[in-house]
Order: sequence, then C-alpha cells, then structure tokens
Amino acid sequence: MMKIGIMGYGNLGRGVEMAVNANKDQELAAVFTRRDPSDVKIATDSAKVLSADVLPEMKEEIDVLILCGGSATDLPEMTPKYAAMFNVIDSFDTHARIPEHFAAVDRAAKAAGRIGVISCGWDPGMFSLNRLYASSVLPDGEAYTFWGRGVSQGHSDAIRRIEGVADARQYTVPVPAAVERVRSGENPQLTTREKHTRECFVVAKEGADRSRIEQEIKSMPNYFADYDTTVTFISQEELDAKHKGLPHGGSVIYTGKTGESRHVIEYSLKLDSNPEFTGSVLAACARAAYRMNREGMSGAKTMFDIAPAYLSPLSGEEIRAHML
Amino acid sequence: MMKIGIMGYGNLGRGVEMAVNANKDQELAAVFTRRDPSDVKIATDSAKVLSADVLPEMKEEIDVLILCGGSATDLPEMTPKYAAMFNVIDSFDTHARIPEHFAAVDRAAKAAGRIGVISCGWDPGMFSLNRLYASSVLPDGEAYTFWGRGVSQGHSDAIRRIEGVADARQYTVPVPAAVERVRSGENPQLTTREKHTRECFVVAKEGADRSRIEQEIKSMPNYFADYDTTVTFISQEELDAKHKGLPHGGSVIYTGKTGESRHVIEYSLKLDSNPEFTGSVLAACARAAYRMNREGMSGAKTMFDIAPAYLSPLSGEEIRAHML
Repeated sequence: MMKIGIMGYGNLGRGVEMAVNANKDQELAAVFTRRDPSDVKIATDSAKVLSADVLPEMKEEIDVLILCGGSATDLPEMTPKYAAMFNVIDSFDTHARIPEHFAAVDRAAKAAGRIGVISCGWDPGMFSLNRLYASSVLPDGEAYTFWGRGVSQGHSDAIRRIEGVADARQYTVPVPAAVERVRSGENPQLTTREKHTRECFVVAKEGADRSRIEQEIKSMPNYFADYDTTVTFISQEELDAKHKGLPHGGSVIYTGKTGESRHVIEYSLKLDSNPEFTGSVLAACARAAYRMNREGMSGAKTMFDIAPAYLSPLSGEEIRAHML
Repeated sequence: MMKIGIMGYGNLGRGVEMAVNANKDQELAAVFTRRDPSDVKIATDSAKVLSADVLPEMKEEIDVLILCGGSATDLPEMTPKYAAMFNVIDSFDTHARIPEHFAAVDRAAKAAGRIGVISCGWDPGMFSLNRLYASSVLPDGEAYTFWGRGVSQGHSDAIRRIEGVADARQYTVPVPAAVERVRSGENPQLTTREKHTRECFVVAKEGADRSRIEQEIKSMPNYFADYDTTVTFISQEELDAKHKGLPHGGSVIYTGKTGESRHVIEYSLKLDSNPEFTGSVLAACARAAYRMNREGMSGAKTMFDIAPAYLSPLSGEEIRAHML
C-alpha cells in the first residue's frame, strides 16, 4: 500500500481524496492544511488532518505527497520545498513559468533522492500527452486544442471581483464551426475569437448597474475582450440550481499528413467534475512516482517522462494480456 | 542521425520508408528482403536494397531494424532472431501469443544488450495506450474499442480465397447506435454483432455463382458469421476506382465514474492510409528504442514501457515549453 498525503483541501484536494480511496493500492494517510486542522472535515475516517507545520516530521508516514495548491503563489514555493522531503505531485499550470518551476523542483528532488512530478492533470497533462504522441508520430501536422464546454474557475473569479456582482459562473465554449474546420483537415489559422466563446451567468447585487457590469466583463483584457462574450443575469437560486457543478472537458485534434494521405487524431474529454478527474490523474501520477523512486529514479518529471505502465496498478504481464 | 533498416517491403515497409524520410533525425540505410534484391524497387535513392542474408554483417550500419513481416509466421521467428543483433521494432498483433512473443524477444534482446519493441502501431499501439491511460486514471470504468470505417486486409484476403472470387475489399464499420450508447455512459454489454457490421465489395469471376459466393462469405466462421454482413458485387474497374485505398481508424471510448460524476474519454483515429500511419508509429518507436538503448536499457518493451518523451525528436526543454 502506498501511503498518500494531501497538502491543501479545496476542490482539488477533495478530488484527490476520492481518487486515492478508489485506488486499491493506495491509502490516504493524512490531509495537511495551513488552516487550523480542527476546522477541516475530510471524507476519510481513517485519515488524519494535520497542520502543514508537522510535515517535516512525517517522512516515514508518507510515500507521496500530492500538492493541491494554486499555481500563482502556492506551488512555486511549495513544490520545491516539499520535494526536498517527499516524492511530490503537483498540477502547476502557469505555462510561461514551467521551465523555472521544473528547474527548482529538479534541484530539490535530486538532492533529496526523491521524485517531483509537475504539471499533472488534463491540460497540462492528458492533453499534453496527446499533443506529444501525435506530433511524434506525424511530424508534418498541426495540433489544435479546444477547451469546454466547461466552467473556468479563473474567469468566474474574475467576474466575481467586479463591483455589484454577488456570484458568477463562466463557461468556456468551443466554436462548433472551428472544430469542424479543424476536423476536416484544412489546417486553418484560427484567432482566439474564432476558437472559443465565453458564456457568463451573473447574479447582480440588488440595485447594481447591470449594463455597467456587462460592459466591464466584456471589456476585461485577457479574460474576455478577445472573445465573443455573452452575459446573462440570473438569480442566486437559479445559479445554485443549474450552475453549481464544475464540469469541463475539451479536445486535442491533430491533423497530419504522410505523402498524399491525411490523418486525423482526436482526443476528447467530457468531465462531470473537473477537480475529481484532475485529482484522479494526480493519484495515478503518485503511483508512478512511488514506483519510479523505488527503482532509484529521482528529480523533476512531467507526464512526458513517465512510461505509461508505471501509472497502472496492474503488472506488466496483466496490462500486456488485457490492454495491449 | 539514426540509421534505420527495414526488413520486408510490402505495404507496411513502404509506410515505414515514408515515415523515416519525413523524420529529420533518421535516415534509411537499407531495405532488406527475402526476395531477389534486384526485383525490389524502393522510393529512397540514397538507400540500398539488400538480401536479408547479409543482415548479420550489418551491425555497424543499422541502429534500429524495423520488422515489417506478418504476425502469423514471420514475426514470431524474425523478431527474436534479429533482436539478438539489432534494436528491433515490430507490429506483432496476434493477441493470444503476445506473452510468448514478449518472452522470446526479451531473452534474445537482453542477452544481446539490445531493445526489442513489440506490438507497435495503432491497435495494438496507440489504442492500447489509451486503454491503459484511461483505466489507470479512472479505475471504476469500462473501455470500448470500435474499429473502422476501414479496410480489413485479413477479411479481404479471406474473401479472395473463395472459389469464383476475382478480387474483394472488406470494410469494418462500427454500428453508430452502439457508439452512441457507449458515449452516453450507459455502460452497455454489446455483442459482436451489435458493435460492428461488415461490408464486402466483391468482383466475381465470369460465370461464377454469385449467390453461393455471398452465402459462403456470410457463413464464414470467425470472419463473418457473427456479424451483419452485406455483399455487393461490383466490377473490377469500380473496385480499382473506388476501393484501392487502405483507409482505417476507429475509436477507444472509456467511460468511468468518480463518486456521482461520470467522465467520458474518447480517442479516435481517421486514417487515409493504415500502413502509412502504422509505419509512422513504428518509426517513432524506433527513435525511442535507439535512445533507450543508448541509455543502457535492454530487453523486450511495448509502448507501455516507453516514456512518451523518448518518441519525440525534440528535447525535454522543447517539449515542456511547446507541448506541456
């Protein structure tokens, strides 16, 4: 049994907990929190809730620590810090900072003889794998990634920060015509606006100026200005009833050529719960990190560096017999 | 530059040749044949055509030998034999015999300090990877594989062996209603007949009894008897005009649960040319075998054992920067 620790208990931490409990070869040893542990109620009776402060004393009790913090400020500090003590997994997704994050984790993990797998999940993660496999097989081709239909928590948060907004949910939606053009193999050049639209469901505070709110959303740089954005005002009751889930998904479509022949490779995800699926990927990566470390490997890794067999609870004989 | 050899020059050998020539880090050194080399014309001016008999003397000239023989009789003998001399790649697809084939290749390759990657292609191959990734991430789920619409060469050959048949092409076609039921997440139990239909285009010899041919096809055990099969007689001209290509494809659909949430993972291929795509996968696996062997690894491998980064011509830094 692999003993798993979870650092941070938000949506992602709960998703990881569910995944670890579904894996027969893993057991949740403890959830670590920067809050007061007595304020944190977890779903696993057999696991402890402990302060993050005691982590340095837990090296014998934890085989892999799964870090469920945010990419903006938590993980750049947390992952190298804990890679010096544990095999660690994170879902770091700030693309531009991956090289420095990888380097920092690599230094710490190598010095400690541990493994740190960064940027696990579905994008980065499963989608990255599909971009890599497709382009390795068909060098003359192009990868297109579409996200959604799904809830973007970052965009929902951005709307909630606008004055007069009580609550909000933002859906990222691929443009069907763009998806069809890509699938057809015509290799289109697509602008940001041509690929995705953004649907916002907003609960306004009483007396708030709705047209100003709508204008502020639609003109917000980076988040909405480059997209066709629709804003629909709804009641808190309707938002709670219809928009409380965190579904997501999307597709990586790769079109490539060999001679005169065209080939289309498409990988798609339809996820009822983004954090539960992401947590499941992290738990599988924890299994791989544990095994790779036991074989003597150390340092920073991404899913690109993990032979798929390490992710499976089954033996080599079993996967060759049943899945090959 | 990796120096690649191709053993066997049928449809698959030509597909590998095209793929190697599209890869900037590989060059085709030679095609080896059991026929008279002067009878074999290849598409690459810079490469030699040589008798398979000289292979034992070519250890310095070939980094990886890609074996393009058939699974029934060629590869069980060829792959272990040449794994004792070279890093080798094959597309062995006789499922029931994979354990013994793996063991034979493993013995030979380990003794020689070489790598033998078996069962590369798309199924086994890319589809296997998708079954493995999905089931590793979501243990509570089910994988469904659909093949087609595409030409089955084995089934086409079976029809051509019937008396009175001049030529034939058989298409395997997934049943759309079955695909939809799987996608919906209902986890159906599907019989062979419910999953695929078989469409046969047959050129009858002059004077042949068409109703007997149709009956013989439809009642052929294993190949057709368990399927809804349609037989359409056409002229040789029409077959040559409309059915000379070797398109194929299909999809792996995995539906799984976490708690109350359902997730659908779908990987699909639409290939204009089955042998050209398969050849492209083999060439990428040759790159991986070459690198893994240079790092000191040896023995039999499948795509399950290859960290995806080894398949790409790009460096770790490049793939993290551009594909993660």
